[in-house]
Amino acid sequence: MRLVPMLLAAAIAAVVHLPAAATVAAEAANTPAASVAPAAPETRISDASMAVAAQLRETALASSLAWDITESLTTEVGPRLAGSEADARAVEWAKAKFAELGFDRVWTEPVTFPKWVRRSERAEVLGANAQPLALTALGGSPAGTIEAEVVRFADLAALEAAPAGSLAGRIAFVDYRMERARDGSGYGPGSRVRSRGPSAAIRAGAAGFLMRSAGTDSHRNPHTGITRFDEGLEPVPSAALAVPDADQLARLLARGPVRLRLALDCGWDGEYTSQNVIGEITGSRHPDEVVLIGGHLDSWDLGTGAVDDAAGVGITMSAAVHIARLPQRPARSIRVVAFANEEQGLHGGFAYADQHAGNVARHQLVAESDFGAGRIYGFGTGAPAHAKSAEARIAEALAPLGIEHMPGEGSPGPDVIGMARKGATWAWLGQDGSDYFDLHHTPDDTLDKIDPEALAQNAAAYAVFAYLAADADGDFGSAPVAAGAD
Amino acid sequence: MRLVPMLLAAAIAAVVHLPAAATVAAEAANTPAASVAPAAPETRISDASMAVAAQLRETALASSLAWDITESLTTEVGPRLAGSEADARAVEWAKAKFAELGFDRVWTEPVTFPKWVRRSERAEVLGANAQPLALTALGGSPAGTIEAEVVRFADLAALEAAPAGSLAGRIAFVDYRMERARDGSGYGPGSRVRSRGPSAAIRAGAAGFLMRSAGTDSHRNPHTGITRFDEGLEPVPSAALAVPDADQLARLLARGPVRLRLALDCGWDGEYTSQNVIGEITGSRHPDEVVLIGGHLDSWDLGTGAVDDAAGVGITMSAAVHIARLPQRPARSIRVVAFANEEQGLHGGFAYADQHAGNVARHQLVAESDFGAGRIYGFGTGAPAHAKSAEARIAEALAPLGIEHMPGEGSPGPDVIGMARKGATWAWLGQDGSDYFDLHHTPDDTLDKIDPEALAQNAAAYAVFAYLAADADGDFGSAPVAAGAD
Repeated sequence: MRLVPMLLAAAIAAVVHLPAAATVAAEAANTPAASVAPAAPETRISDASMAVAAQLRETALASSLAWDITESLTTEVGPRLAGSEADARAVEWAKAKFAELGFDRVWTEPVTFPKWVRRSERAEVLGANAQPLALTALGGSPAGTIEAEVVRFADLAALEAAPAGSLAGRIAFVDYRMERARDGSGYGPGSRVRSRGPSAAIRAGAAGFLMRSAGTDSHRNPHTGITRFDEGLEPVPSAALAVPDADQLARLLARGPVRLRLALDCGWDGEYTSQNVIGEITGSRHPDEVVLIGGHLDSWDLGTGAVDDAAGVGITMSAAVHIARLPQRPARSIRVVAFANEEQGLHGGFAYADQHAGNVARHQLVAESDFGAGRIYGFGTGAPAHAKSAEARIAEALAPLGIEHMPGEGSPGPDVIGMARKGATWAWLGQDGSDYFDLHHTPDDTLDKIDPEALAQNAAAYAVFAYLAADADGDFGSAPVAAGAD
Repeated sequence: MRLVPMLLAAAIAAVVHLPAAATVAAEAANTPAASVAPAAPETRISDASMAVAAQLRETALASSLAWDITESLTTEVGPRLAGSEADARAVEWAKAKFAELGFDRVWTEPVTFPKWVRRSERAEVLGANAQPLALTALGGSPAGTIEAEVVRFADLAALEAAPAGSLAGRIAFVDYRMERARDGSGYGPGSRVRSRGPSAAIRAGAAGFLMRSAGTDSHRNPHTGITRFDEGLEPVPSAALAVPDADQLARLLARGPVRLRLALDCGWDGEYTSQNVIGEITGSRHPDEVVLIGGHLDSWDLGTGAVDDAAGVGITMSAAVHIARLPQRPARSIRVVAFANEEQGLHGGFAYADQHAGNVARHQLVAESDFGAGRIYGFGTGAPAHAKSAEARIAEALAPLGIEHMPGEGSPGPDVIGMARKGATWAWLGQDGSDYFDLHHTPDDTLDKIDPEALAQNAAAYAVFAYLAADADGDFGSAPVAAGAD
């Protein structure tokens, strides 16, 4: 029973990629773990480990390796929509890159999911103010061409209040403007429009759904992202307008009725099996225990997925390589996972959790980098009391990077929500996401948007964190959630 | 003979929209005018006029009229490619707007030009790094689909040095990066790549032409613009890559050969007759003498032509309205011209000059606002000595707007080059163009990019300038260029 809110939160997170919901999920997940190990000895990090970490930090800061990896993925593979031909090339790229970088073990684990395809998308105002509008289909949208009058709603609540049938034959337009924030908190309400709006529109009888992009920029680059239709509803074409186009449509609607032609060619097309690609640096004393770090390998198709999430792959791969190049390996292994299909429902993360459900306790800590390439400003974990002083030691080693210890803040990255739900303890290395939603899920998510110095700061933070966690004397509280609670 | 450099400069200006070249053209044009009126009495501006101008300045600064007009054109008409259905709607909009704003006379003058049409455009890297690239056809490009290897040139000179035949069956790519500058001076070399590159590519045997956009942004929004093919050459498909895509192509080329599929569907399609739309506020004492101000009504099709050049239309229309609302009209008329088809070769400006060739001396001063919506920072004219103290008086009235008197600087806006060549004296109200080439000719040229306060500053400057020039006691040196010099 008590897990119900947690599962709900995780389900929302799966659709909307929502840190706040994920926090709730993970903290709920960790509570039982802590309660089954009340008398664990205090975890310690030695002065020797701290000295190595300080060296590692400087090495990683001075290295361009994270950039080189990110450049390679975005340039050579480019956009890599889950299930596309480029998805397969990305998997081959990751295997080859892990091998080239000298990882001790490289393997793949299958991830199967429904495949969604985008072919074309177009919208135009009809009549006296005829003009095209820039938009993009939401992931999961069906194909369809409709000509209909547009009805504007200021926000999701207004649409949800529309009586059944009141939008018959019309297009619902939710004109909610997302707020900018360092921690990305504006994305919660912004992305809820995307996840819940289409179903609300259908309930009111709408023939189509449009939204102002869940983004903070003002460029002609619409923001895509996955949506879901509630059970029992017949999906309708659903798309996001670029921010200037939402402005334009709002101005036109202020003058009088607007008829729009919306033509989307896209939809679900069978199943596809991709791979989580995993590279491991073997630990010296407890090789079967791992610190798991990673990013996701897939991207949306509009850009080259630089900040979302080639950066995460580059940061975590390079962090492990810096650790591998130390004179001596840490006690535990460093496992880097390039997750499959995060974008359409955390498929890679959940597949990993299913595959490794029996080894939760062997995951010392789990952390994913999937919030762009801005500098890390905060650090925390979901660890129980006996590991809190070790967490503080890690924070001490991160402080010279401008990172603040923020216990009680943060959440697991989306692809480790699955493991956190099963009882693995998560760590959070909080990136400055002030600009992230200028680029997120748009054509503009390209390499030029990444600051190489900020990227190196991220890599240094992950290297320090992963090394210290892997070399700690004691655990961070990962333990399987009691079966009875599920 | 002496006009040859001037005509050449004007021709370049026509293709590349280049202030520097325009300056040369206009200054050459004004020299003979000055020489035929050596003994003109000094032009004066009265204290009473200055007092009215000071009031006018405050009224215009506090008014949203320039914004309202700009909003109306960009919203109601949207993109308005010369020769398109929207061109005709823009003409109707301008006629109605002049009438609604209470102009004393409103009329149109025909402008005929070849019509160019854009239907679709697409490019993709082929092979192991398969991915789409964002680009747009250059205006004037023919249709065509080619698959070919790309050859990169660092700049135009490198392409021009390529031996004849050396690019047979290949695509030339000029990777020149335009520089940012307040006065837009980086656009000279940037746009020369666009105007001369395609012909240089054809001479070397190329099957297609690509360039890094002549722009200063880094967004997935390519910059279009007109090109010309030299006589006797068979045009090839020619396009501009968005800046991040030029980066991407350069990175791929650094790894090895790149084959590209370039598919453009566009081309010339007969002739079209549009209209210069003209509104006039009748002067109180010399109604047949005019201060001509204006902007151009057409835009490229990718954006809604907000900074290029709805802003110019809004600034100058509103300036005239503020003058019309004064208790007393200035001595001369204020003529506002919304020029047709500036983008494809200053067609409206040259048509106006042909139509009004016999009335050069009745044009007190001519000025076009066509460099965006940034604040005006400098003022000057091409006037001869007897009007220099009047110019200084105008500058004095502009100074509270943060505008510096910069004699010897500046040039006529593109659509008044034709009149300047015929001997009309131009004025320059120099706008800060630091950000102009982030937006120029891209999908991103939309209303949200305009700062309403900067727009009002522009309107105030045009109102003050036009009023004082119209109310001056004496002329600014406009006189027909001696026939023998042509």
